Amino acid sequence: MTEQRPTIRLRPKAEARAIRHGFPWVFADELVMDRRTRAIAPGTVAILEDAERRAMGLVAVNPNSRIVARMLDRDPQAQIDEDWFAERLTRAMQLRQKLYDTPHYRLVHAEADGLPGVVIDRFGAAAVIQPNAAWAEIRVDALARALVRVTGVETIIRNGTGRARALEGLAEETTILRGQVDGPVPVPMNGATYMADLTGGQKTGLFYDQRDNHAFAARLARGGRVLDVFSHVGGFALAALAGGAEHALAVDSSAPALDLACQGASASGFADRFQTRKGDAFAVMEALTGEGASFDLVVCDPPAFAPSRQALDSGLRAYERVARLAAPLVGRGGWLVLCSCSHAADLAQFRAACTRGIGRGGRRAQLIHTGFAGPDHPQLPQLAESGYLKALFFRLD
Amino acid sequence: MTEQRPTIRLRPKAEARAIRHGFPWVFADELVMDRRTRAIAPGTVAILEDAERRAMGLVAVNPNSRIVARMLDRDPQAQIDEDWFAERLTRAMQLRQKLYDTPHYRLVHAEADGLPGVVIDRFGAAAVIQPNAAWAEIRVDALARALVRVTGVETIIRNGTGRARALEGLAEETTILRGQVDGPVPVPMNGATYMADLTGGQKTGLFYDQRDNHAFAARLARGGRVLDVFSHVGGFALAALAGGAEHALAVDSSAPALDLACQGASASGFADRFQTRKGDAFAVMEALTGEGASFDLVVCDPPAFAPSRQALDSGLRAYERVARLAAPLVGRGGWLVLCSCSHAADLAQFRAACTRGIGRGGRRAQLIHTGFAGPDHPQLPQLAESGYLKALFFRLD
Repeated sequence: MTEQRPTIRLRPKAEARAIRHGFPWVFADELVMDRRTRAIAPGTVAILEDAERRAMGLVAVNPNSRIVARMLDRDPQAQIDEDWFAERLTRAMQLRQKLYDTPHYRLVHAEADGLPGVVIDRFGAAAVIQPNAAWAEIRVDALARALVRVTGVETIIRNGTGRARALEGLAEETTILRGQVDGPVPVPMNGATYMADLTGGQKTGLFYDQRDNHAFAARLARGGRVLDVFSHVGGFALAALAGGAEHALAVDSSAPALDLACQGASASGFADRFQTRKGDAFAVMEALTGEGASFDLVVCDPPAFAPSRQALDSGLRAYERVARLAAPLVGRGGWLVLCSCSHAADLAQFRAACTRGIGRGGRRAQLIHTGFAGPDHPQLPQLAESGYLKALFFRLD
Repeated sequence: MTEQRPTIRLRPKAEARAIRHGFPWVFADELVMDRRTRAIAPGTVAILEDAERRAMGLVAVNPNSRIVARMLDRDPQAQIDEDWFAERLTRAMQLRQKLYDTPHYRLVHAEADGLPGVVIDRFGAAAVIQPNAAWAEIRVDALARALVRVTGVETIIRNGTGRARALEGLAEETTILRGQVDGPVPVPMNGATYMADLTGGQKTGLFYDQRDNHAFAARLARGGRVLDVFSHVGGFALAALAGGAEHALAVDSSAPALDLACQGASASGFADRFQTRKGDAFAVMEALTGEGASFDLVVCDPPAFAPSRQALDSGLRAYERVARLAAPLVGRGGWLVLCSCSHAADLAQFRAACTRGIGRGGRRAQLIHTGFAGPDHPQLPQLAESGYLKALFFRLD
């Protein structure tokens, strides 16, 4: 049974070559946006044709989105059904199984895993789906069936929060599609146990993208005192303690997040070396400086200060301020780790903001390492901008 | 005893602020280049003044170089003697001791370690100095004495080869300053033993900068068949075998390099899983494709194809060609690692060249990891361009 498939067509001058070579998006100004195309219901699967009416593949259409069409399959005859989802999920799982010893990872990272707009994080026998595009929202049941088939997960949460959904015109709503959720889920990572709240937490409950950066920081933290600002559920702090840090202090404005961090520290067996401080990160850093506090490793992993181009200037000023306030808290010869998950701020801009902030904080620095999101967050090489996460590791004089 | 110190001065419009904030270089057009300044002997230590004649610090001057002055010390009274070198070396060694279990690393990485133009690689009880700037060339004896004092090394080689020296107007010559060299030196890294030729090899004999990228590749290579093109002394191949690869084939045009790779494989205990093939990398890749060869992991780590801006276009074409020839040798779902050590080709340009090449090689790719030089190669954050090494890890469909 074939779905009824509309056709959309590239304008004569559109960059068909980029799409043929793997660029996965088609913008409104590249398409013949006639009344018929504009009337296509969001999430409809259509055939994309080039200006000479040759079929280029199967796309998901959303005329309300900046990205009108997202490439689903180069085969215009493909059926977007449970089997199709299962094939994509299998390929995605094979990559992660090669990389990780336990089934705790980002299983699907959208375009690069062939499922545009879809994010799936796996937590052992549970998974959280973020169907952040209309085509996937409509087909979430087939996706969930395929997910059970391929991975054997028993619990599936559909997480309908986040900025990406608003851009697609989707409503915010989180539901449990399969199984049940009984409190936070333990997640083993870098020798520590994290506690993830899959229904009420930030994003999917845990940030897998920082795993390799946690590991690098842990290497530096051995034997030292650690300050983890914007700690969430203890990301850097617990990894550092597992790596042999003497003590860690986690700062966050969210009491539930810090409570999960404490549960994680207990589950990991180092509650006695772990403390938390609830409050505004900027205010706490100023207070700590006032108290004369000093740490061997300070990490600041704030939320996206520059989530959009419009917010770039104010975002970069905020990153500079973070660096300026954090630098004085680092002991001589110690380490400062500064992170950004802002799409809009590229690596050079973020590095410059950090460098200015460190300088204004009265310190000089060597940059010893630059880390990005871990390998369970693959990118399409054509979408360089999807390299949102940056972690800069400085050593201060 | 104070050396007689000339003074050089910034022009009124020069960017004194950048230098005050840690930028370490002064170019000719920023300086009052009067006859007196032009007559300063290369390598002389001078006091840098701003346009208002306030001392900004101590610089090494070379009027023959594009970079006329390199900042040595913010203290204009500092003495550039054995004690001064010892202080810098101690600080550099503390960083590496935190990072590595054995004394095998890049000990000094030029500007970022406070010794402009100077590279020192440490191989246990031996060290190789590349004094690639006139000021250090003149003072290499004091540097060597400090090196013995701080590290306890017994053998010191002064390696006077490489492109950087020509830019400084220095002659090519390699000498043994201390101790003696009896054949290749074993270097433990990532679970393998490498053999480094400290007097007759490329650069200092071993490329420490790829250590973390070797480790990442080894993680992917477990159980698989590996092709290591431009292998030098077996960089990626031996790490992959130590990580559990089934077999590795190393390709290089240098018979001495491949001989060292074989010695390394024997010393590591996996000579039976290691083979070499001498020849031009491009020709060998074409021949292997003709033979229908297929590998789970293919690595190409060529010499700098774009060492200068002038060579950028031809360099990017060469990188694209490498990718095009390598991609067909990767089995379905396998890995392709492409490296560049070209200063002139930035990350985005190199990634685009690789992506084009992979496409022209008939494959589609996910980019799962981007690696740079290891943390024993720190950078000054102000010198982003010194991030010369890029390693892109692709998974191919």
